[in-house]
Amino acid sequence: MITLDKIKVLSEKNDSKIIFLIMDGLGGLPRPETGKTELETAKTPNLDLLASKGVCGVVDPVSRGITPGSGPGHLGLFGYDPLKFDVGRGILEALGIDFDLKDGDVATRGNFCTVDKKGLVVDRRAGRISTETNAELCKKLAKIRLTGAELIVEPVREHRLLVVFRGSGLTGDVADTDPQQLGLPPLKAVPHNNASKKVAEMANEFIDKAKEVLAESHPANMVLLRGFSSHPDMPSMQEIFKLNPAAIASYPMYRGLAKLVGMKVLPTGVTIEDELNTLHEHYDDYDFFFIHVKKTDSYGEDGNFDAKVGVIEEVDSLLPRITDLQPDVIVVTGDHSTPALLQSHSWHPVPILLYSKWCRPDRVKEFAESECHSGGLGRFLSMEIMPTAMAHALKLAKYGA
Amino acid sequence: MITLDKIKVLSEKNDSKIIFLIMDGLGGLPRPETGKTELETAKTPNLDLLASKGVCGVVDPVSRGITPGSGPGHLGLFGYDPLKFDVGRGILEALGIDFDLKDGDVATRGNFCTVDKKGLVVDRRAGRISTETNAELCKKLAKIRLTGAELIVEPVREHRLLVVFRGSGLTGDVADTDPQQLGLPPLKAVPHNNASKKVAEMANEFIDKAKEVLAESHPANMVLLRGFSSHPDMPSMQEIFKLNPAAIASYPMYRGLAKLVGMKVLPTGVTIEDELNTLHEHYDDYDFFFIHVKKTDSYGEDGNFDAKVGVIEEVDSLLPRITDLQPDVIVVTGDHSTPALLQSHSWHPVPILLYSKWCRPDRVKEFAESECHSGGLGRFLSMEIMPTAMAHALKLAKYGA
Repeated sequence: MITLDKIKVLSEKNDSKIIFLIMDGLGGLPRPETGKTELETAKTPNLDLLASKGVCGVVDPVSRGITPGSGPGHLGLFGYDPLKFDVGRGILEALGIDFDLKDGDVATRGNFCTVDKKGLVVDRRAGRISTETNAELCKKLAKIRLTGAELIVEPVREHRLLVVFRGSGLTGDVADTDPQQLGLPPLKAVPHNNASKKVAEMANEFIDKAKEVLAESHPANMVLLRGFSSHPDMPSMQEIFKLNPAAIASYPMYRGLAKLVGMKVLPTGVTIEDELNTLHEHYDDYDFFFIHVKKTDSYGEDGNFDAKVGVIEEVDSLLPRITDLQPDVIVVTGDHSTPALLQSHSWHPVPILLYSKWCRPDRVKEFAESECHSGGLGRFLSMEIMPTAMAHALKLAKYGA
Repeated sequence: MITLDKIKVLSEKNDSKIIFLIMDGLGGLPRPETGKTELETAKTPNLDLLASKGVCGVVDPVSRGITPGSGPGHLGLFGYDPLKFDVGRGILEALGIDFDLKDGDVATRGNFCTVDKKGLVVDRRAGRISTETNAELCKKLAKIRLTGAELIVEPVREHRLLVVFRGSGLTGDVADTDPQQLGLPPLKAVPHNNASKKVAEMANEFIDKAKEVLAESHPANMVLLRGFSSHPDMPSMQEIFKLNPAAIASYPMYRGLAKLVGMKVLPTGVTIEDELNTLHEHYDDYDFFFIHVKKTDSYGEDGNFDAKVGVIEEVDSLLPRITDLQPDVIVVTGDHSTPALLQSHSWHPVPILLYSKWCRPDRVKEFAESECHSGGLGRFLSMEIMPTAMAHALKLAKYGA
């Protein structure tokens, strides 16, 4: 498969516009009573019309059989190989609270926990303290000063917090300090390599000082750190694809993932309609738009088949607000499947539809998994969507003479 | 995917015969009035019959979304990864005039240009001098002697010429001397690495001497060199596939590409019928034939939908001259798509049909893009056609016990 280095050489700037409409967790599984998936159950006249004029297929976000998290799912959509570019858990935690990550940051997911008088962990979640208590304790922890780097501590939710080490030349390949079972002391932060020694030392300094600061804050009298990770070193979409890309997403995690690859994050409201208003307002200013619809995934995770169907129908009813803009390329797909029957992300390939003046239509007449399986795009990896969209926008030069 | 090294181990010589019928730029896009591509519009009873007895699919020559030049397009067909084996522009220019390249040659595309008294480029194409004038000037340039290598200068067409440096241990990773805009002097030839220093020095020596030779030849009073490239170091089809392969092509570029991979180039006439006469004359002498039909691409590039349809129909009417020979495997496909609507090569996958006594037929009844999308071969890379054809010719041994 072609590499980003080669795509970078072929990419050309022009006036054409590309819109990615991403319904999170779009792919589903058929309800036994009807034999139809969520997408097949939804009444989607607009998507079906677009599918009949466009070309369809199914995509594997990471690799066949692999269930992706949100990070890998979106990196694939943005054209990056999720098996090569790793967004660590600490970094994802930071993105999830709209934290403004800098190049070189090392982020970790923290837990408040309870230790007994011997220093052994007796509750790994500190009785799930309230988010308010969490915020007060984080303010205290944030006053800790470390040798050689800036420390940032931010509350997340309940017992969860974000701890960021900010400095130059930091590498975060460090083992978790969470012993994963009760009755053991928190582990020392151990570096996996020489480059990560500095961060491990800082983490241990932080933990020691945090223990003092939290001594009187039972049940949250200690902190465990997990998912140490460095800011991923990724080429931006501007660099690779010569695009001026914008993200429209009402959830922080997806704004953060978009920011990682260089997208401008546009302020928007919480509904799909808000997001499409944002698209209209900024349509002239960018040539690539990533629009993220969250609720398809949320209802899938809840096992709420009908509500997921409802969100898909809502998207369908609003589709003309995208097609009326007559972008050069429209891609409709998801970052992974979230079948309501499984109540979780899954490995099933995700239906995709691409419409462009320059697409070669297939025989698919309905945007539905069963139809997409025999579409002209075939079955392919998500990371190949970007080159395909770029080609249809006439933004890729010929390879070789 | 399996590598050529492994295929080499599995390949076996036997008496079966494989014919590749390549219609250059075969894939198309539907004409809006009919919704049918060139191939779908053409009346092709013989190809349709073969498709219904055979197995169909679509191929991506390089990678999804990538529009291939003729070089990468054909390397893929011959079983070589076009992303790994690079045929540079200078080498292609040499192939295009039937120039007899030797291993180790470094070839460049030259331009005659016009410089003013200060030595600044005022016309990058020297007023597109006639091919005759070009030939006379090349004769003069060919008399230049260089230190350490043989120089060969050949006219191409109008202002274009071929400059070849022939010697031992030459590497041609050298930047273009064309400044790409007017009002600047020609650039010095700069090597990209140490290995290419020698060629850069020779190129500068040539340019200096050419300037003297051409001093009185206004408007063609200077030469620019582009696309420095070394003869690609490729294993031959004999080596990898144990074949005795022959090429039947009426255009020099395709004869040259076939020669690069070790094919014997058979002399032939300009029509498709001439090419098939050549096939019949030499049928007993080879076990692999590459037959190249150029006009499908030429008419595609011209935007002449109907004429492209006409060429496909001509090929169809002549197909019995191939099937009557009862080769063990027939593959019909293209090196890339050239939709008349786009008037250029494109990234769209190319329909393919494979017939063999040992193929497993699918449900495709017509050789057409929309049908091929759901064929039994699926969608795959061109470089996998060769192993597939070899298998159907029973020329590949079992892998592993």
